[in-house]
Amino acid sequence: MNRPHPATGDRPLALVDEHAHAWSPKTARARFRKGLTGPTAGVAAGHTQANLISVPADWAYDMLLFCTRNPRPCPVLDVTDAGGWTTVLADGADLRTDLPRYRVWRDGELVDEPTDVLEHWRDDLVTFLIGCSFTFEWALATAGVPIRHVEQGRNVPMYVTSRRCRPAGRLRGPMVVSMRPVPPAHLSAAIRESSLLPAVHGSPVHCGDPSALGIDDLDRPDFGDAVDLGADDIPVFWACGVTPQAAVMASRPPFALTHAPGQMFLTDARDEQYRVA
Amino acid sequence: MNRPHPATGDRPLALVDEHAHAWSPKTARARFRKGLTGPTAGVAAGHTQANLISVPADWAYDMLLFCTRNPRPCPVLDVTDAGGWTTVLADGADLRTDLPRYRVWRDGELVDEPTDVLEHWRDDLVTFLIGCSFTFEWALATAGVPIRHVEQGRNVPMYVTSRRCRPAGRLRGPMVVSMRPVPPAHLSAAIRESSLLPAVHGSPVHCGDPSALGIDDLDRPDFGDAVDLGADDIPVFWACGVTPQAAVMASRPPFALTHAPGQMFLTDARDEQYRVA
Repeated sequence: MNRPHPATGDRPLALVDEHAHAWSPKTARARFRKGLTGPTAGVAAGHTQANLISVPADWAYDMLLFCTRNPRPCPVLDVTDAGGWTTVLADGADLRTDLPRYRVWRDGELVDEPTDVLEHWRDDLVTFLIGCSFTFEWALATAGVPIRHVEQGRNVPMYVTSRRCRPAGRLRGPMVVSMRPVPPAHLSAAIRESSLLPAVHGSPVHCGDPSALGIDDLDRPDFGDAVDLGADDIPVFWACGVTPQAAVMASRPPFALTHAPGQMFLTDARDEQYRVA
Repeated sequence: MNRPHPATGDRPLALVDEHAHAWSPKTARARFRKGLTGPTAGVAAGHTQANLISVPADWAYDMLLFCTRNPRPCPVLDVTDAGGWTTVLADGADLRTDLPRYRVWRDGELVDEPTDVLEHWRDDLVTFLIGCSFTFEWALATAGVPIRHVEQGRNVPMYVTSRRCRPAGRLRGPMVVSMRPVPPAHLSAAIRESSLLPAVHGSPVHCGDPSALGIDDLDRPDFGDAVDLGADDIPVFWACGVTPQAAVMASRPPFALTHAPGQMFLTDARDEQYRVA
């Protein structure tokens, strides 16, 4: 697979507005609808964020099966009916306009990064909302784990790995991971807290040496921004909801829409709802 | 929906052979392949059991979406490709022969309860393996919770409830629950332990008054056997993997195969693998 396009360079919203963490999801969606863009880590804190991918109906079974067979990177929170742009997860939301930024894919190639997809919409699109690791950052922060990319005002770094997902029909591709540097003293809490949120990727897939995942250089993420590690920080890798985008790039369906990496859909759901115990 | 057919009356395997709990899953499957029948609670203890449902490929998307939208009763552990009768969950297993007893459905009506489905097999069948609450009985028992239906040598009682599942395409139907009487002193452990196994129904959907679920009479389960409650026992209800069978009965696809209630597929997976923490 070719190296994906770099991120757009939109500034994290937590830097744009110091009150972004206190926005309601409805307020956030309304601002995104009006054109505000940027990574959403820390926005509307405590509310569940979601990855988005829309594919034509004749690819929907393959996508749903791909997610089912790869639940760590692709935990499905909701699936629309064909052509539908609403979701039970967010009252009054329009999935075509309410994300900060989208990506438009034709034959597996990124062709546009618009702030809405009204012009690209098709009546046969089935939209998948997939759990996002920003959700467990709230739990990690509450447990005292420092969130380096938020501290540094950057998007979370994401990497294409050498691990293959289980294929499903015409869809195949590598697992994508997000990485957070964690001080050793906080590693136990980071693993414990994310374990309790299996609907948003659950526990890490790997801790430590990036080469075990086929990652050569932490400073060159495939999506998002590089993040500085503290002196003793351990790189901790979680399965990432950008994985379906990597499957689109590898499998080349004729058409797909996704969120821009790090610029998520804000649901009305509370992170606590996805906590198992 | 009409009252479903009663169970077949096969004796629980734990009564047929006192060593059944120590069988390997491979041994259990081989015995079922040769014709042994009966409810599988406690068989090959510590290994994950699964509900089975096979539908024609043109119903597979609806079924997968139904499961995705109703993850508590229908947690998907594996999905085969069309026509396939093997699974990554059990080496060498044949899904057409290796369950104790099956049910054959035509237009939503139960037409046969054979011990294999070789004669009924079709090349367009997609098979779903769905988590089973027998899996968390091991965790409950380990935590000291008495399992009344096992003590009494009966199949677990299952009830059709008044709660509707979220529909998906042509599929709709009520949630089915299994019920276990739990002494108040063990209620906390029962809830905690099952919470940690979200892939096999997770925490109870209800504790106490059965009428809250539209259940009139605990002594008349819709599937399985009635179980005696101890003096202080609280009836505790978990979402049940027979729910897709109820959807078949309510939605009437032209053809479906399922396991017979309580007579599950034995996988090689360990229950521990599905534990989140």
